[in-house]
Amino acid sequence: MNNSEWLKVPVAQLNSTSKAAAEARQAVLTKPLGALGQLESIAIRLAAMQGKEKPTLERVRIVVFAADHGIAAEGVSAFPQAVTAEMVRNFANGGAAISVAAHELNAPLEVINLGTVVDPGPLPNVSDQRIAPGTANFSRQAAMTEQQLAQAMNIGRQSAERAVTKGMDLFIGGEMGIGNTSAATALACILTDNAVEALAGPGTGLDSKGVSHKITVIKAALDLHKSKIDSPVTALQYLGGFEIAALTGAFIACAQMGVPVLVDGFIASTAALVATQQCDGVGDWLLYAHASAEPGHKHIVKALQAEPLLDMGMRLGEGSGAAIAVPLLRMACALHNGMATFAEAEVSGNL
Amino acid sequence: MNNSEWLKVPVAQLNSTSKAAAEARQAVLTKPLGALGQLESIAIRLAAMQGKEKPTLERVRIVVFAADHGIAAEGVSAFPQAVTAEMVRNFANGGAAISVAAHELNAPLEVINLGTVVDPGPLPNVSDQRIAPGTANFSRQAAMTEQQLAQAMNIGRQSAERAVTKGMDLFIGGEMGIGNTSAATALACILTDNAVEALAGPGTGLDSKGVSHKITVIKAALDLHKSKIDSPVTALQYLGGFEIAALTGAFIACAQMGVPVLVDGFIASTAALVATQQCDGVGDWLLYAHASAEPGHKHIVKALQAEPLLDMGMRLGEGSGAAIAVPLLRMACALHNGMATFAEAEVSGNL
Repeated sequence: MNNSEWLKVPVAQLNSTSKAAAEARQAVLTKPLGALGQLESIAIRLAAMQGKEKPTLERVRIVVFAADHGIAAEGVSAFPQAVTAEMVRNFANGGAAISVAAHELNAPLEVINLGTVVDPGPLPNVSDQRIAPGTANFSRQAAMTEQQLAQAMNIGRQSAERAVTKGMDLFIGGEMGIGNTSAATALACILTDNAVEALAGPGTGLDSKGVSHKITVIKAALDLHKSKIDSPVTALQYLGGFEIAALTGAFIACAQMGVPVLVDGFIASTAALVATQQCDGVGDWLLYAHASAEPGHKHIVKALQAEPLLDMGMRLGEGSGAAIAVPLLRMACALHNGMATFAEAEVSGNL
Repeated sequence: MNNSEWLKVPVAQLNSTSKAAAEARQAVLTKPLGALGQLESIAIRLAAMQGKEKPTLERVRIVVFAADHGIAAEGVSAFPQAVTAEMVRNFANGGAAISVAAHELNAPLEVINLGTVVDPGPLPNVSDQRIAPGTANFSRQAAMTEQQLAQAMNIGRQSAERAVTKGMDLFIGGEMGIGNTSAATALACILTDNAVEALAGPGTGLDSKGVSHKITVIKAALDLHKSKIDSPVTALQYLGGFEIAALTGAFIACAQMGVPVLVDGFIASTAALVATQQCDGVGDWLLYAHASAEPGHKHIVKALQAEPLLDMGMRLGEGSGAAIAVPLLRMACALHNGMATFAEAEVSGNL
């Protein structure tokens, strides 16, 4: 299926009856109204998404998309490109942050290799769907062909569909790809109309000289491609990565199927930007886990009108920030579903 | 035991060897150093407190202290005083926010009644240790006698000691008491040298007229007592509440026994202020769960040099904000203990 067909499928509608029922319930639970802050609004949003007064988040599914980036050849990362495949192995073997967090959450973790330069070999729970050994170097040519873009977005869509078939209350998409903050920064500059200086940051740990070089590389690339970019998905094709395209496809598919998504940090939020700008109503289905320490994230958050739950200085990716926020969402549901009402508990209301 | 004896017991020392080992471990886990933000520093602090490279937080104990306040007679709360005892019943019956959260965390919840105006009757897991039917009205006289203060602090100390005897990795102290934001505000004004206007807020839901009245009442009370207050615990005696004194005693006892404390919001942070200002080194043992929506909390946080983990607009008390943050601390431990090192995973380091 090419993008021109499935991207036109409308997103699912929120359930206004369930939303109203959840709002009414929050108003009579034994606490001053509003005293649970964002936990109240999360429970209400999840009720509207799941179409039930008492939402649940037992079945969380995490998919990590991995791919390499041609732009890495320009020296824009603090880590060598081999790390992408090495981390795919680490995901599979349970040693990465997202592996540990998924285990803590009792959430299945699927890893999809969309194109590492190095073949990590056969691994448990890693699906080999390599499109190419990394994207092309977007400082010289488009990162992807139109066909590759469609393929990557489709892989994301299919991963969401498989998760829904297995049963899913919440989707988390993670990513791994050395060089991908450069791709995301370039994309986000176009989509938020910000200067590269405002959005570029250290990524995995560049020093200030490294960040300056990264800015120069991205600026030149934007000058090269800008005139050809006429839509969010075209920006994704010219500047993005396979894993960013897969995240975008997965987010749109979740919104079409009516499944809540918990969005991670800098890279995942950039995919959310593409998704929300390309397809009306996707934002209804997105919750934002955390404010990344990557300095440009705040501009992306602003453009998304997002209110991230956490701000703990995290900047790892892999979906780790989203995974860490899951217990807060589960607590929001438990409180909403399990607290007594003033009438049930025979507690007096306010004066 | 009166306060003059046990408050002089020195607090436990952090374990610098375990801290160094935890720091060294964080530096070799498969992630860019610092990429897990506050989760890294939490794991390191817990290692130093628990005296082991790999800290654990299985055994969390929550004690909620409840008591009434004479100041409620001045019309400083949006809820009637009967709610304190009604909520004690709600805690025991599992319907309150802290009851639901404790259940989610698999954490035992103990409720101690230090003095409600209404007798809630015998209840499971509620310990009746009533000192008096509420404190005296501090707008007219000292909230407590010296003897009552010592008794309340001792009840807090003993609750921490009992918890340690049963086995405890982390202590959470909650509170319930209609009128206790007025007591905490008065206390915090003295301890942080702030104007009442900077610290007074809506509490459970006063309107702006109600807040103005609360400010007038607290100002007059401070004028009445200020000259007699010569130490943090004297401020606690004149302006505090039984539950605030019990929290203070519990926090100091935890620090003396070397047990980490996760401090809740406005009221609990005020107790932490008394504890840290009265006894050297208590702050080493305190972690701060969240920034309360009660506007004065930020001044208390500043005085404590605290970095609350969450900022979700919560303002409920009961220890609920602390309970909600527990999964983040547990995740910090799980990541610290369970992630692979670069060597173990054969992942390349940075360039």
